[in-house]
Amino acid sequence: MKIKVAKSAGFCWGVKRAVNMAVDSVKKAGGRALCLGELIHNKREIERLKNLGMVFIEDMNDLRKGDTVVIRSHGVSPKVLEFLKRKGVEIVDATCPFVKDVHEKAIKLEEEGYPVLILGNARHPEVIGIAGHVKNPMIIGSLEEIKKLPLMKKLGVVCQTTLNLSFFKEAVSILSLKVKDLKVYNTICSATSVRQKETLKLAKEVDVMFVIGGKNSSNTTKLYQIAKEVNPRTYHIESKDEIEPDWLENSETVGITAGASTPQWVIEEVVNHLLHLKKGGVLSGRGVCQTT
Amino acid sequence: MKIKVAKSAGFCWGVKRAVNMAVDSVKKAGGRALCLGELIHNKREIERLKNLGMVFIEDMNDLRKGDTVVIRSHGVSPKVLEFLKRKGVEIVDATCPFVKDVHEKAIKLEEEGYPVLILGNARHPEVIGIAGHVKNPMIIGSLEEIKKLPLMKKLGVVCQTTLNLSFFKEAVSILSLKVKDLKVYNTICSATSVRQKETLKLAKEVDVMFVIGGKNSSNTTKLYQIAKEVNPRTYHIESKDEIEPDWLENSETVGITAGASTPQWVIEEVVNHLLHLKKGGVLSGRGVCQTT
Repeated sequence: MKIKVAKSAGFCWGVKRAVNMAVDSVKKAGGRALCLGELIHNKREIERLKNLGMVFIEDMNDLRKGDTVVIRSHGVSPKVLEFLKRKGVEIVDATCPFVKDVHEKAIKLEEEGYPVLILGNARHPEVIGIAGHVKNPMIIGSLEEIKKLPLMKKLGVVCQTTLNLSFFKEAVSILSLKVKDLKVYNTICSATSVRQKETLKLAKEVDVMFVIGGKNSSNTTKLYQIAKEVNPRTYHIESKDEIEPDWLENSETVGITAGASTPQWVIEEVVNHLLHLKKGGVLSGRGVCQTT
Repeated sequence: MKIKVAKSAGFCWGVKRAVNMAVDSVKKAGGRALCLGELIHNKREIERLKNLGMVFIEDMNDLRKGDTVVIRSHGVSPKVLEFLKRKGVEIVDATCPFVKDVHEKAIKLEEEGYPVLILGNARHPEVIGIAGHVKNPMIIGSLEEIKKLPLMKKLGVVCQTTLNLSFFKEAVSILSLKVKDLKVYNTICSATSVRQKETLKLAKEVDVMFVIGGKNSSNTTKLYQIAKEVNPRTYHIESKDEIEPDWLENSETVGITAGASTPQWVIEEVVNHLLHLKKGGVLSGRGVCQTT
């Protein structure tokens, strides 16, 4: 059995940066720092960070003056930032610079007189953060809703950095005929595009495909959908323990990819487990590893 | 046999306006006025206008001081306009206001720092006119060429007013993933969109479809392509004389549409000829006419 791990699997640059900043902040704050919401959508990494001294809170009112607070890579709205400043906490802003760029583009569109449409999941923290930067944004996450939009003179578009490429393409295509003056910022980050393209390619090549990442991770779920469409034997798992041995029946090749919030050690566990199920083998970094 | 003529068949507002302005200019100039190129892409209407005193020239050097010159609905580049002014001729500018709007949008894009892409046929006079308003435009008329474009930071798009809607939609869709900051002006005029949509609908409903208009008319050829795709029994004709009676065999319904440059009288000739072939009948304006 051949196992192929996508080169782009796992943490993107922004997530790596946020995790490093969070770990550093715990050290600097003397062993305890807080984070608004889950730093990344991966339960097991969250557990690891908790063990290091990170505290995850959902309610900002739980903060006390002098606390160190990490803003995760998804970013927040200016109102949240103001609240934190008023509260007198130490802010460690780990917002991904690519997400900050979306904030700036949304603001620019509004300044130029474009009604702002954010393509993405209205409940995703990144989208909530982007929406907080403009006065009256539309947030749309389905083509059905795009199709229902009326004809418009002007519209400015930004999107969630982890949006599905084909959704974005189709949405812009529909908008092109509805809007006379359409300004589109493709704010899908390059890590997302590369990962989605590689996932599609790999899923087509292999017999069985694993997509590793939190079930609540938006970008992992999209990778799963992309792979599943071309390979029915695609499984979305959070850890090696979910793998049923019969999933591997009659399979000569296995492909592995992972969402932006999946740590390297989780990917390695899965690879080692698969090699073990097929009587051992060696993992030689990203690429092709072969069992006997 | 039922004959259905599309409501939107024939002259659009801009063409009607240009023909009226041309006819008026002949009268005002004492029976002779010149036009740069064919006023509209329809040989028979050109013949009619010639008989009224219109002279069609291809070479601007044939103009003499004091001549009255009509700029057709397609518009011209600023350089041509300057040449005419220097020449001391009387200019009757019948450029379609919707085409002038494309000129202004292309200029605006360039002023805002967007490289300008014109979607359309590079040899079409309207596109040549638009291109003349910006310094270094790209002109692209095929999806293959769009696909070959490199990744770009910025791009501004305008299009020929008579562009195929589905081509425009697909082109913008491809560009959305290639360009980070994409500004798109959908400059397809509403007459074109309505005519294309109605042609598609009608062609699906009828047994035989006729698209009337010059073989060199860009917008008529597009109507023909749209209809042909859904109805193999679609014919592109310039006049009634091309109709072969066997085209109507086993047909209960006939649909008719016509390009923006097809005069009403040419459409009426075709309808009357069809009614005659099927033993008489009455034309009751745009809608459904029934033969016995």
